Amino acid sequence: MPWQPITDPTLTTLLDEVHFNSRGLISAIAQDENGEVLMLAWMNREALAETLATGRVCYYSRSRNTLWRKGESSGQEQHLLAAALDCDADCLLLTVQQKGVACHTGRRSCFYQSLTPVGCVELTSPAIAPEELYSTKKSS
Amino acid sequence: MPWQPITDPTLTTLLDEVHFNSRGLISAIAQDENGEVLMLAWMNREALAETLATGRVCYYSRSRNTLWRKGESSGQEQHLLAAALDCDADCLLLTVQQKGVACHTGRRSCFYQSLTPVGCVELTSPAIAPEELYSTKKSS
Repeated sequence: MPWQPITDPTLTTLLDEVHFNSRGLISAIAQDENGEVLMLAWMNREALAETLATGRVCYYSRSRNTLWRKGESSGQEQHLLAAALDCDADCLLLTVQQKGVACHTGRRSCFYQSLTPVGCVELTSPAIAPEELYSTKKSS
Repeated sequence: MPWQPITDPTLTTLLDEVHFNSRGLISAIAQDENGEVLMLAWMNREALAETLATGRVCYYSRSRNTLWRKGESSGQEQHLLAAALDCDADCLLLTVQQKGVACHTGRRSCFYQSLTPVGCVELTSPAIAPEELYSTKKSS
């Protein structure tokens, strides 16, 4: 089912229930519809408001200090299917439809390094070469 | 398969690869073997070392500033099946066998508040009353 936009006054009520941390951020886990956990990123109030209103997942980039519409440079967008808040209201679980891959390394999931008794073992190889992931969009 | 303990020198090598934040912490997502995301908590180096060495999940409580062996007061332990590090080495995904419920409210998962156009909707009810969850163990 496509995302049902959340609009005011409900949107503001929900945003007021969220506990953003001292930097104004909340962590957000993205999981696809098959249960695979893809990534963890952060949202500020503005990013969460946009995500809930539009259904297009928008994070807040802590390194670039700006809104980060997932897929804006790589084309690998995330579309929201559901959003849940945890018991402490300080973490979100997003169920998303992931276009292509979530990870900047070209893998479906960011969690590809397994910790084992023989060391760090890569669980998956890139499905798309990282160069390809970013070059195409940059030139367009 | 039961957890294969990770011991030195591999343990130290792995811990050195983890990017703990300025407070010495890393976020850890716990997901059960059926794909349900149960909770997000934090670990410091000591908590992660203990978890990888023993297979019994140990977090770091930011409110109590101490190691928090999941289930130590509630009996609702987590046993590790797998641990994966993300691409930036600043988030862990733990696959766990959850005894009973993960949430302090008595629910299986902490993510029980769905954000919808009509407001916050509870997805699940407590499977165990919170009073019951903590009182039994406290008296023993």
